[in-house]
Amino acid sequence: MTQANGNTQRARARDIGIAPGHYPPGPLNAITDVAGVRVGHATIVEGATIRTGATAVLPHGGNLFQDKVPAAIAVLNGYGKFAGSTQIEELGEMETPVLLTNTLATGRAIEAINRWTLSQPDNGQLVSINAVVGETNDSRLNDIRSARPSIEEMGEALAAATGGPVAEGSVGAGTGTVAFGLKGGIGTSSRCVRTDGKDYTVGVLVQSNYGGHLRIDGTPYASSASEDRDGSIVIVVATDAPLSDRNLKRLATRAFGGLARTGAALSNGSGDYALAFSTAAEVRRTKNQRKKVTAIPDLPNELVSPLFEAAIEATEESILNSLCMAQSTEGFNAGTSSPNRVEAISLETLKRLARR
Amino acid sequence: MTQANGNTQRARARDIGIAPGHYPPGPLNAITDVAGVRVGHATIVEGATIRTGATAVLPHGGNLFQDKVPAAIAVLNGYGKFAGSTQIEELGEMETPVLLTNTLATGRAIEAINRWTLSQPDNGQLVSINAVVGETNDSRLNDIRSARPSIEEMGEALAAATGGPVAEGSVGAGTGTVAFGLKGGIGTSSRCVRTDGKDYTVGVLVQSNYGGHLRIDGTPYASSASEDRDGSIVIVVATDAPLSDRNLKRLATRAFGGLARTGAALSNGSGDYALAFSTAAEVRRTKNQRKKVTAIPDLPNELVSPLFEAAIEATEESILNSLCMAQSTEGFNAGTSSPNRVEAISLETLKRLARR
Amino acid sequence: MTQANGNTQRARARDIGIAPGHYPPGPLNAITDVAGVRVGHATIVEGATIRTGATAVLPHGGNLFQDKVPAAIAVLNGYGKFAGSTQIEELGEMETPVLLTNTLATGRAIEAINRWTLSQPDNGQLVSINAVVGETNDSRLNDIRSARPSIEEMGEALAAATGGPVAEGSVGAGTGTVAFGLKGGIGTSSRCVRTDGKDYTVGVLVQSNYGGHLRIDGTPYASSASEDRDGSIVIVVATDAPLSDRNLKRLATRAFGGLARTGAALSNGSGDYALAFSTAAEVRRTKNQRKKVTAIPDLPNELVSPLFEAAIEATEESILNSLCMAQSTEGFNAGTSSPNRVEAISLETLKRLARR
Amino acid sequence: MTQANGNTQRARARDIGIAPGHYPPGPLNAITDVAGVRVGHATIVEGATIRTGATAVLPHGGNLFQDKVPAAIAVLNGYGKFAGSTQIEELGEMETPVLLTNTLATGRAIEAINRWTLSQPDNGQLVSINAVVGETNDSRLNDIRSARPSIEEMGEALAAATGGPVAEGSVGAGTGTVAFGLKGGIGTSSRCVRTDGKDYTVGVLVQSNYGGHLRIDGTPYASSASEDRDGSIVIVVATDAPLSDRNLKRLATRAFGGLARTGAALSNGSGDYALAFSTAAEVRRTKNQRKKVTAIPDLPNELVSPLFEAAIEATEESILNSLCMAQSTEGFNAGTSSPNRVEAISLETLKRLARR
Repeated sequence: MTQANGNTQRARARDIGIAPGHYPPGPLNAITDVAGVRVGHATIVEGATIRTGATAVLPHGGNLFQDKVPAAIAVLNGYGKFAGSTQIEELGEMETPVLLTNTLATGRAIEAINRWTLSQPDNGQLVSINAVVGETNDSRLNDIRSARPSIEEMGEALAAATGGPVAEGSVGAGTGTVAFGLKGGIGTSSRCVRTDGKDYTVGVLVQSNYGGHLRIDGTPYASSASEDRDGSIVIVVATDAPLSDRNLKRLATRAFGGLARTGAALSNGSGDYALAFSTAAEVRRTKNQRKKVTAIPDLPNELVSPLFEAAIEATEESILNSLCMAQSTEGFNAGTSSPNRVEAISLETLKRLARR
Repeated sequence: MTQANGNTQRARARDIGIAPGHYPPGPLNAITDVAGVRVGHATIVEGATIRTGATAVLPHGGNLFQDKVPAAIAVLNGYGKFAGSTQIEELGEMETPVLLTNTLATGRAIEAINRWTLSQPDNGQLVSINAVVGETNDSRLNDIRSARPSIEEMGEALAAATGGPVAEGSVGAGTGTVAFGLKGGIGTSSRCVRTDGKDYTVGVLVQSNYGGHLRIDGTPYASSASEDRDGSIVIVVATDAPLSDRNLKRLATRAFGGLARTGAALSNGSGDYALAFSTAAEVRRTKNQRKKVTAIPDLPNELVSPLFEAAIEATEESILNSLCMAQSTEGFNAGTSSPNRVEAISLETLKRLARR
Repeated sequence: MTQANGNTQRARARDIGIAPGHYPPGPLNAITDVAGVRVGHATIVEGATIRTGATAVLPHGGNLFQDKVPAAIAVLNGYGKFAGSTQIEELGEMETPVLLTNTLATGRAIEAINRWTLSQPDNGQLVSINAVVGETNDSRLNDIRSARPSIEEMGEALAAATGGPVAEGSVGAGTGTVAFGLKGGIGTSSRCVRTDGKDYTVGVLVQSNYGGHLRIDGTPYASSASEDRDGSIVIVVATDAPLSDRNLKRLATRAFGGLARTGAALSNGSGDYALAFSTAAEVRRTKNQRKKVTAIPDLPNELVSPLFEAAIEATEESILNSLCMAQSTEGFNAGTSSPNRVEAISLETLKRLARR
Repeated sequence: MTQANGNTQRARARDIGIAPGHYPPGPLNAITDVAGVRVGHATIVEGATIRTGATAVLPHGGNLFQDKVPAAIAVLNGYGKFAGSTQIEELGEMETPVLLTNTLATGRAIEAINRWTLSQPDNGQLVSINAVVGETNDSRLNDIRSARPSIEEMGEALAAATGGPVAEGSVGAGTGTVAFGLKGGIGTSSRCVRTDGKDYTVGVLVQSNYGGHLRIDGTPYASSASEDRDGSIVIVVATDAPLSDRNLKRLATRAFGGLARTGAALSNGSGDYALAFSTAAEVRRTKNQRKKVTAIPDLPNELVSPLFEAAIEATEESILNSLCMAQSTEGFNAGTSSPNRVEAISLETLKRLARR
């Protein structure tokens, strides 16, 4: 796995003066600011045609199947192959990592999550696993029909998952994605909010691969490529606030507010999904808690609004980070079976916008 | 308000040997077996043409707006005017009584609930109320365009609400309804279940006004009128189990299992709605609890199945009770503007079926 | 009905240089650019405390019940009393006008629509009507508990409905609404798009009553009042394109993209609803077409994207128009039972923003 | 692949006198009575532990991706891994075969469908495929963790698909399933209805693996094993009627009526899914029709009721057929890692019930 393209110096949005929203970010300005969350990438760059990968997000470092987290899914436009959605909706919980990858790799990602889950200590007898997989279509730069990432490469993303800073841009599931005709990819951000006298963090990670008329914190970014309006986005929202699955669904829905603020066209072909989960230990559905009536702390409806606005803001900044950190990439357009090159967003132009 | 028809002796299904399901009923075999639940009827029978009414169900005897109950709504076929559904879905709670009435009375029922709510102690400053109203179409026996029940008559149903035995058959919102070509109406039933070492009650009340090919605990009831397959049903499910709004939605969905067992045709024109709420004091969303993080007891997914089956059984028996207790009724067919008579189900035939 | 406040000269957004989006507006830049659509207001301003009203939108000038239009509803946040939603969802059609009004007037609005529908030629025998009512809470300027608009005043809005230019700002259902701490109200806009070689129009009308951090075509509008983030919005989207109810639902969903672009906080308390319908004659569900298999023109999935973006843009501009055209208003805060004054947005500030 | 158990003579329900419902079945009393539908099984029986398989259903014999069929999914209880649901919901169409298999094989089934689709003539350039996969958990008889069926075995089911009579019982995806504590499996049935003067067929195929208190056309079937209430069912509904995706969703929902009539407990652990599609040539979304406005015949709401009742009846009979045709099976209980034997339903008992 080598970089197929020059390693231009890139920067995050906030580092060049673009800081959308009103709430402060966490220390890493990343989904990993939500304690316990882990992220892992497998970046697959081979020859002239393979530009793809997988990104794993784990809600905590324990046994995800035995100690499930409350979770919810929101769908703005369901043109996608998101796996695991109906069980999340029915039971309000998630029992595996999330894997993001490319459209034709969904089956292999499920298989990888199942294998990984069965291999965890204490899981050897499982007979049912609800693998959660999001995808966007990286076929504008990747030979998507080539069956990569393989199941084993998916496993590498799961194995690589760790807390701390998160690699962004043309990595993992973002290796070959395109947004607004520019190079998209993985981006992340976070927000700190205070409600009911307590501090909570909302963290977001996106795989950007969609289009529209790009806005940088409200200001248009002129791009000749902007007619490229299709594609999709998967958004993962984590919080340490003790939210019910119902309020997690509402939180997930707010991510689309951040998406819309970037000028998304919300076109027919864009699969727009948001998954939200809570890492709060006290809402975790442990083996014990699943077998008896337990009192579960709940942040009520009337206190959730700051978290909602945090999800909007962190999504907007995650998307900008995915663009700012992505590298110009040469690859293979699988739709036309020809080479293709997608430019990174110009940081110079962004700095100029930011100075206004 | 007088009876427009001879007061034939009627009996509940169980009293003539028809006892569907496996769980035992509560002491009253009624929704009011769920502690705190109150039911009130306004039965409107006037002249040759008015056969209608309203039935109120209150989750508890306190201030329903200040101390909201978790609630959920399930819709099998949304051909109806059910009011309050989107807020119940969004917030997972109910803040008013439920009123059942006729199709063209929905607006007046909302107005009555709003007036009633504003008139309660401590509610004088309210500016938002989510009135919950279900309806079916009693126009086969009632001059539905005559604007009855009035807002004031709706208020009578609310004022009449009380615990204890529930009048069934051709009363309240069931005064003019028709089911399987026979006289339908209000019916109720309950089930007692044990899960996690604790006893819980599930109670159901229905307004039956639909059709199909009637089955009495599985056995066909031959009726020449059975081609009458349209119409609707509203089902109210109460439980004292500490269920989340998500599991209440699942509980409400199970009510349709009981509906199907009666031979419902589930036709295009049938509006089939089920509302479920929990009366458990500890899940109530009191003024205090709505303002801070509170630990709320939750009966987890893995323990709910007995409650689900109870909801199926109590719905089936509620429907049978609505038929068994209803009186043959003469009224006015508003669709054809002509007199009409709908016969009650034959208890003799039912007794014969039960003996087999 | 007199103006309770000075009649300052107001202007539409586009007239002061604010023209969000890329598609051109129609001749009136209003929902009435969609041929056949009619809008009527009843503006109720009385004494010091009544600042409310109703706004009617009619899909066409014929018999709405006999010739139903395909329609769909999308809910971003269901904290509202929107009436008629489940039947629209189930049957994919609308059979009455839409009335927008205040939160506690929903019941009276339903009653008014029912009366109006029964009074139309050929409707005398109806026994079922699915009234469609949207509402937001004008209690920051209006004594919302005073039972206004009355049923009769609702009827005035229906009777006033006409094509042509649409009054905006503090009129009809927008008389007492507040958005971003500024005076909100009714706003409208339209967009013309071309797809499959044909020209279509998308028109939007909003009742703005929500909050967040206001953005004017992307640029922040600093307002000390912006902490006011609750409230709601109802959005009506009309098009003459032959869309299926499914694609109308997707079109309605896109309206929330325009909402988000204005900086909406999408808070817990905001009921955010969008209704969409098609006026295309050939998709109308006439009495005849409802009784037999008919070939219905359908704009397929792959052609809808321009309409989606048009809905985003027209919603954003409708909201800006609702602010630009609204007058500063003195009224009665029903939550605090005290007088209140809400300022209109400063057109001077907007002109300055537009010049940048 | 050999039969692991004695090949007792089995019979379909109708052949032993059990014929639920009122509409007549088609010539084969199978989903393949709907013209064009093909079914294929891969039955995997190996050693003492492998009892699993896959069943493919194809809406027509042409290029499924290029000529998509309108489709819809209904979920009664979403405790399952059904793949492809969000795109079916969003676009109202299906572009691949459906594969039914076991819970841990979902990923491999997706991979198999993707490979199969890419291998079809004219599909070589595809970059997005929405594979549709349903599953139930056959771990009571099958070593579900053994990664069977393999991707290649899934392909065998697809390759085997053909019209004509359908093998039922312990075959394909039903090889290891259990229903009501008895051996479940694959079952199918059909109904012929007439509406608007035209004849239509509704065909159903089920993979039965759930529980409750079994009813045979209403009559209880006493079984000591009936405490086995968990498990799931996937129901596929086909029709040649020109239904919109919205009415297909309603049709799919009716399948749960047939499920309920069999005494299903609708328990927490039961994933209950129904997929419906139309094979009518004139509603097919061909490559051409997806690019321009086309007039599409539509069976309107007011005519669908007979189809709804047909779906209820055919589902009930499909389930009974899955039980009647299944063979007693010895296998491996993967939950307890021990041998297990599940008896077939007694045809003698059923004949006795039928004679009453």
